Parts: sequence; structure tokens; C-alpha cells
Amino acid sequence: MSSTSPTVGPGLERLSLNTATTKRWALAEAVAGCVRAGIPGIGLWRDRVAEVGPERAARLVDAAGLTVTSLCRGGFFTAPDAAGRAAALEDNRRAVEEAAALGTDTLVLVCGGLPEGSRDLPGARRTVVDAIAALRPFAEAHGVKLAIEPMHPMFCADRAVVSTLGQALDIADETDPDGGTVGVVVDAYHVWWDPELERGIERAAGRIHGFQVCDWVLPLPADTLLGRGHVGDGQVDLARLAVLVAATGYQGFTEVEIFNQEVWDAPGDETLATLAARHRALAS
Amino acid sequence: MSSTSPTVGPGLERLSLNTATTKRWALAEAVAGCVRAGIPGIGLWRDRVAEVGPERAARLVDAAGLTVTSLCRGGFFTAPDAAGRAAALEDNRRAVEEAAALGTDTLVLVCGGLPEGSRDLPGARRTVVDAIAALRPFAEAHGVKLAIEPMHPMFCADRAVVSTLGQALDIADETDPDGGTVGVVVDAYHVWWDPELERGIERAAGRIHGFQVCDWVLPLPADTLLGRGHVGDGQVDLARLAVLVAATGYQGFTEVEIFNQEVWDAPGDETLATLAARHRALAS
Repeated sequence: MSSTSPTVGPGLERLSLNTATTKRWALAEAVAGCVRAGIPGIGLWRDRVAEVGPERAARLVDAAGLTVTSLCRGGFFTAPDAAGRAAALEDNRRAVEEAAALGTDTLVLVCGGLPEGSRDLPGARRTVVDAIAALRPFAEAHGVKLAIEPMHPMFCADRAVVSTLGQALDIADETDPDGGTVGVVVDAYHVWWDPELERGIERAAGRIHGFQVCDWVLPLPADTLLGRGHVGDGQVDLARLAVLVAATGYQGFTEVEIFNQEVWDAPGDETLATLAARHRALAS
Repeated sequence: MSSTSPTVGPGLERLSLNTATTKRWALAEAVAGCVRAGIPGIGLWRDRVAEVGPERAARLVDAAGLTVTSLCRGGFFTAPDAAGRAAALEDNRRAVEEAAALGTDTLVLVCGGLPEGSRDLPGARRTVVDAIAALRPFAEAHGVKLAIEPMHPMFCADRAVVSTLGQALDIADETDPDGGTVGVVVDAYHVWWDPELERGIERAAGRIHGFQVCDWVLPLPADTLLGRGHVGDGQVDLARLAVLVAATGYQGFTEVEIFNQEVWDAPGDETLATLAARHRALAS
């Protein structure tokens, strides 16, 4: 339970800051920034949590009255050998425990790319399915949902062999036939281009464990990871996407996760003010 | 008909050089380079053809005994206004005529990205369908096949809103229900990541009008267009892809199309020797 109820900005009831957006802020700074901005949710990265440890991190966000909307991230299952895959699974169990300690029910999974030197994409994809199947009972026992993040196909080789919402849902079907634990996170940046997007979101009803937004901004920077922009600065029809997600019955937070050097260089309070303004504009 | 029969290198019977791979070579140089390397096919870009005009280009390749495996490219249908879309359609009719004049039966279509300032992706996709439907009878009358090129989703905003093989085949179904004219070009770089690839290629049987290869090489360069590498230098299982394509009954050429500054800076004869060696290795 939250110790205090922060003052939530009007129209910001379902807005969450993913801490990757304010890369320069330590956890305590991000928490204080959210409170100042009237943003009631926060999505935490494990490195930020590790800085203070899960217990202290939990106390920090709880004392501020914030909701932890997700823990980013588990995954990276596709090690080239059995020992590496076992270590990855073990690390994911720790991530599940951290999520539970932080009071969030959602662990985001970035599933991993091709193993070093491998071209066996179907094999890597099979590895991911097996790992999630193995992790599922542990997550269930801890009351933590596994949110598979399909990533943009430009990250298929080096980051996530799960490339579409449809593929992520197939994995959820296979690893959690009864439902309730394995689902997806819909990240606008990764899925906006998909010709099957509408069908995929419809099919994801009840299994959307997170909704992340940012915008597709061209040209892509030299480091393609950092091409994301503030909502409204790019070419994604985020209003339409938000409507599609809401139509499934999703009532969770909209988490803003932006990897972008310029955003990182801006003062955090400015960034949060932009988040709030764009969020209100999107809803109107 | 070819005036001469060039000496084809052993194992290179179905290899084609796409002229984008040897960017520094004018058409006559590329033709002579193919003859020296024993490469019997050539895929032409319209800018190379325009340098000498379609008639002279046709005579050049014909005199060398080369097969023109494709003309690149038509498309770019998604202008923001009706006048622009009409102009695009007219330009595509010229491209069809050029293809016919060059003796190739395949015009590659790069369909265009989002119109300037637009976020209406379904609308842009509808524009593409309408344009191909309008172009189809003209192409049919000229005996030219329209090869829709699904492009990697990282080019969805600025280059091609056709992002998957499945989507391209849906467009072919809709615009050419009787078949025979509208099909696809399978470009390894654009489709390798697709979880539905196997199903898509199977479904494309009889409608694969071209097969292009190069490799996915990381890191992506600042200009993401130029990240392609020689066959074998990257992370795509091209051998598997070639088997899948051959299993559909495809008996056409394998066209090597590489956009890469280092490849462009290399002497053309070296590049063609690499093409030949990698092609043989792939088949073995």
C-alpha cells in the first residue's frame, strides 16, 4: 500500500514514466520528479533498482505513493550453450522476485537475439519458447505476469527474435495455455508498422500486461536504439493505437519509454512536462 | 534474343548482378564486368538505363548475351495528393514500357512510404493497392510482371508501407485475382526476420517474380539503407532461404543487390568475383 497519495495531474491518472526516459536521474530523483509532475506511475529498470536494492527501491516508490507499472527487464534467453541458458533462466527468476518485491505484477521480457555466430533463427525462437515455459510456473507462484515484448524487426539479430505481436501471442498460447501469466507488452515503437496490428491487438485482449509509447522519428540515428521521440514528434498514429488498446478492455497505465540522446540531455523536469502535455493531447 | 552467348562460369547459371551493387559502374561497364566474371544475368536500375536510353541499353545487354532479370524500380505510389498519385502512376507506366523494351518480364515495385506529414498508415496501404490495381492491366498488356517488394519494417515510414510477404501476397490476390501479373520479389534482407516467412514463401509459389539476396550485417550504419553485406558476411541463413524459394518451383535467377559504401568503393571486378564465390558456396 502507498504511504501517501500523490497529487495526480489532471488527465494523468494512467500516465507512467519509464525510468529509461530520464536516464540521468537516479531512482530517487525519478520518483521525486514524478511526484512534482503529478505522474502517478513509474516503470523501473533493474539497473536503477540495483543502485539501491529492491527493498529500498520499493520503500522509495511506496512512500511517494507511486504505482510501479513494470519492471524492465527479463529475457535474453538465447545464450549459445546450455550453461548460458541456465544462467539466463536463473537471472530471470531473480527478476521475478524483484518484481514481486517492488509490488509490480509485470516483468517485461526482451527475449534476446541470435546466439553469437548463429544463423539459426527458428532455433533461437524455439529457445525462447522453452525458456518462457520453464519460467512460467515460478512467475505464477510469485504473482508476476510475464510480458513478452515483441521488438521491431531491426532488432531481430541482436536483441529480440520475437518480432511481431502475433508471434508473441503464439508463444503465450503455447507456454501458458490456461492464461493469466504470460502475455505481451505493446510498445508502439516496435509494432506500429505491422499490417496485422489491428488483428494482433484484438487477439491480445486480456493479455496486454503493458502499453508503452514513444514515436518513430526519422532519420534513424547511428545507434538505432536511440531513434525514439516524444509522443507526437514522429510518424506513428498513437491516438489510433491507444484506441485499439483501450478497445480490448485494457485499463492499465500508458508508460512512456524513450531512448534518445537529446531527451536524455534535457532537464528531467522538462522531459516530464512534455510527457504530461503530450499525454493529455493524445487523450483529447 | 541474345546476339552472343557469353561464357557462363561453372555454377553461376542462375546468378545475376543487380547494378546497384556496382554503383560506380556505368551500364556498359557493368555489362562488360558480368561477361568477364561469367555472370549471365543483370538486374537494371532505371537511372543506369536512363544514361543511355532503353533502346541502347537493350542493345548493350543483348549484344553481351546477358539476361535482364529485373528492372528496378517502379512504385512510390503514395503521394499526398491526387495529382501526385496520378503522376506516379504515369511514371510507372513508363517503367513498364522500359521493362518491355529491355526484354525483362519483371518490374520491381518499391511501393512508397507514408505521405509527407501523414500518420495514416492504413490509408497509405490502401493507396498502394489502388495504384497496383490501376497499373495491372497496362502491365499485362505489355507482358510485364509487377513484383511487389515487401521492405524491412524499418523502411515503413519513408520507403515502403508494404512490410511483409504476407501483406504483399494479399495485395497480389486483391489486384490480380486471376494471377499471372502481380507477384512478389523476395529480398532476403527485407524478409529474413519474419516469423511467417516459411508460410509466406510457400504461399508465394508461382508468384515469385524475383529473388534478391544480400546479408544483414551489424552494426547498422548511420544511413540504414547501406547496411547490407555480401552473402555470408552477416546473420541471415541464406542457404535455408534459397531452399525454401526453390521448393516453390522457382527457377529464376538469384540477383545480388548490395547497398554498402565499402562494397561500392571496392573495384567492381573484385566485387563480382566475391559474388561468384559466395554464390557457389551457397549452392554447395
